[in-house]
Formats: sequence, structure tokens, C-alpha cells
Amino acid sequence: MTQPGFQDVITQLKGDQTPRVWSLLVTVFGELAQEDGAQISGALLSRLTALMGIKPEAMRVALHRLRKDGWIDSQRSGRTSAYGLTDLGRAQSAEATPRIYDLAPLPKRAWLVARDPGQPARKPLAAEVWVTSNLQVAAQAPPDPASLALEILASQPIPDWCANKICPPSVVALTAAFHGRLGAVQAALPRCAPLDCFEAAVLRILVVDGWRRIVLRTPHLPDHVFPAGWLGRPCKQRVAELLGQYGPRGLGQLEAAL
Amino acid sequence: MTQPGFQDVITQLKGDQTPRVWSLLVTVFGELAQEDGAQISGALLSRLTALMGIKPEAMRVALHRLRKDGWIDSQRSGRTSAYGLTDLGRAQSAEATPRIYDLAPLPKRAWLVARDPGQPARKPLAAEVWVTSNLQVAAQAPPDPASLALEILASQPIPDWCANKICPPSVVALTAAFHGRLGAVQAALPRCAPLDCFEAAVLRILVVDGWRRIVLRTPHLPDHVFPAGWLGRPCKQRVAELLGQYGPRGLGQLEAAL
Repeated sequence: MTQPGFQDVITQLKGDQTPRVWSLLVTVFGELAQEDGAQISGALLSRLTALMGIKPEAMRVALHRLRKDGWIDSQRSGRTSAYGLTDLGRAQSAEATPRIYDLAPLPKRAWLVARDPGQPARKPLAAEVWVTSNLQVAAQAPPDPASLALEILASQPIPDWCANKICPPSVVALTAAFHGRLGAVQAALPRCAPLDCFEAAVLRILVVDGWRRIVLRTPHLPDHVFPAGWLGRPCKQRVAELLGQYGPRGLGQLEAAL
Repeated sequence: MTQPGFQDVITQLKGDQTPRVWSLLVTVFGELAQEDGAQISGALLSRLTALMGIKPEAMRVALHRLRKDGWIDSQRSGRTSAYGLTDLGRAQSAEATPRIYDLAPLPKRAWLVARDPGQPARKPLAAEVWVTSNLQVAAQAPPDPASLALEILASQPIPDWCANKICPPSVVALTAAFHGRLGAVQAALPRCAPLDCFEAAVLRILVVDGWRRIVLRTPHLPDHVFPAGWLGRPCKQRVAELLGQYGPRGLGQLEAAL
């Protein structure tokens, strides 16, 4: 059903991992159905997941889990179903969207922040990371006078133990692999016939899903505090090129094309 | 036996504390007998301690303790004894001397140093202090690449919890009290008859001993990392004025004047 050239692209983008169907569906809803009241038909979901090589049974299991987690709900009319984000799912998608789609520019400055060890630790924000129990690297100097905040200039060498807290080696390795796969995809695409709207949507979803796995595991901090092998910026560059080349497909367009 | 004006000076310098005879004798030996082979006669020790208002029995107890601790040893010839520093006592005196007599200029710069939390902590040097289990304030950026060292500029506000680790409130309070006592001493001295060599030696010993109690409890770091009430610098200024005005008395001069 799919042209062979595009099949190679899919295979590259999925890598050698078993497909994370649940995560891919989260990306599908985030990409296509973030608007209030937006609903994706079962038929469109089947078409997209089939293109991604996901078996119908695996899709049903993942949809069930997403419903159970309160991320989506479904409406049945006659023999067909439609699926939409719940308020919870929509809020979480909206929270992640600026990071994933690079709508929030990367901060340029970073601070080392020593917090009062007598105060309780709190959950870190996206733009900060605890490197020890009372030491943070943060994109802003906190206004509170109980913190000692010193700017980390771009010329500052960051020791490994600290850089590895900011971005663990496993995620650094993900960027290297993802960067290579995106390069292979960019080399393969010119050999494909022009993508139809479903293929273009699937390409976007797989690119976004791969990038999402990296960007949501890393703090929103400038490059100069990341470990040496961090390829986040070139990955982001390739993601932006691909998403620019294959612009967003509207849900209405896709439903109509079924 | 002592002129009443100088008695007031002694009282001021000793403050309202019970005399720390052991500590005062450590200062006496550091001030008068740091040279190799230098020995202080029992007669001179008695003369100096009497001027400081120390009872003979208290002096004997303190000498016994210093001998037991391996700080000094004694030589008896006939009915008289002489006391000198051991190698241990001389080494420890020599180590403290540059700080006490301000021969090592105060560092001008300070760094916040985050050490690899995976490495074992070590005993701090004089020019560094641990403010948390893996965070130091130090007068030098360590060359080791496993440390993250950021300069603390003089304009940097230091939060209380951190400044209090650099110098605890009890020592800050000592500087305020000592500064006041030195001021009273400087006001009282012009009303005294010129000091004889024993009085001048005792004045130096009490000034040095008071300063030693402060300086050896604080890290060798620039003023701008100390708590707000820290009067170390004005104390040091008054100490320098007094020690400059009443220069060191040689051991030979004092023994000869007995």
C-alpha cells in the first residue's frame, strides 16, 4: 500500500526499537487534535498507525490504556468511534508543545544556584535541574535572597558529573542516534514519490515523537551546560528542516481524504 | 606592682572571660620562643603570667598539660626550670604565625566550588570552607577538572546560611566584642606611664591571643564572603596598630631585665 521509498523512511525513523504505540498516539493527538473539541475518527487513526507499521490490536490496546489513564475519551456513533483529548490530556499536550515545537527559544544564560540546605527541596521546573541535593543549574537566577546564584558563562568548563546530571549519557546517546537517523531520512526523502497527506502526517508524527523523547527528558537550559557529546542542537535543526518541508496537515483535510 | 592604668588595659583585654591559661601560654611561646632551641625561664613565665593576673597554681597546671600534649618540654637545672617548644609545638606555632601576624595577605578573590559528589570529602585548607557536603567557598579555583568553580565577585550577595558557614555568628560576635575592647585599650594606653618591657610583652600577648581566637576560627577568605556583622578587618587594623606601637620584645631582653 505504501511506496517502498517511504517505507524505508518509516523504518529509519522508528529505528530498531519496538514501537512505543502509547507514546506515538500521544504524539498523534498532540499533533492533530489539540484544539478544543477536536476528534480523530477511528478510521483515520487506523490509517495513520497502519502506515507506521502498528498492528490494529496494538493500537486498540494503546487506546484503551490512554482512556484508562484519562488522557483521551471516545465517542461511539453507530459502528464508528471518534477519539479526543480529555481536559487533562489537552493540558499536558499544551504544556509540552512549546518545548517540542521549539516555540520557546532556548535560554542563553545559566546560573549555578546553591539553595539553603535547611529548606526542603522542591520539584524542578523545566528550566532547572538539581545537580546535587541543594545545588541547581537554572536558566534564571532565583529572586529569593536565600539562594546563592552565580552565572555559568559559556566559557566555563562543566565537569562530567555535573553535565551528566543535566543530561544523562543515555539521552546524549539518543541524540547521536536520532541525529544519524534524521540524516538518513533527509537523504532518502528525495528518492520518494511526493508524499500524500497521510504519509506527510506520519512523517511529522514520527519526527516529533523521536524529538519529544529527547527534549522532554532534558532541562530547558542553554547548550553550554550540556555534556560534550550532546547533539541536541543539530537534531533540533534537522527536526525544524523536516517539519518546515512537510508542514502540518489539518485534521479536516486528513478526514476528508480518507 | 603594676601601674593602675595598665591594670585597666589588662582587664579590658582579658574581657569577662575566665582566663584561658593554656591558650595564653601557647601564645607566649609562639610570640617569644619560636626560634630553634629558644627556652623561657620559669621566672620569666611567672613574671608574665602574674602581670596577666594568672595564679601560679593555674600556670603550673597549664604547663603540665602543655607538656603532656607534647607541645612543650622542660629542662631543670638546679632549682630552676626552663621551657621550650617541642618540634610539634614549634611546627604548629609556625603554621599559625602567618595568619595571626598577617604575614599572608588576605586573598582578594573567592570561588564557589562544587566538588564531584562521588568523591570523598577531605579536610578543608585554611583558604577554603565547606558550606555544604560538596560545596566549598575557596580562595583559589582548584585545577582539578572534576570541580565546577565559579568566581564570587565582591558585588555578589551571599545568603545568610552560606555566610554563617564561612563564619559562624558566635565568631562574628567575638569580632564585635574584640573590636570594642581594642578601642577601649587604645583609649586607655595614652593615660598609662610608658610601658616597661614586661608590660609591653604582656600587651602584645593578650592582643595576639584575642586575635588568634578569631583568626584561627575563620577561613582565609576575602571579606566580601563574610557575614554582614563581621568586623575582622577593623579588628585586624587595631591589632596591627597596637603591635606596631608596641614592637616585639626579644626573649634575651626580657630574661636580662628580670
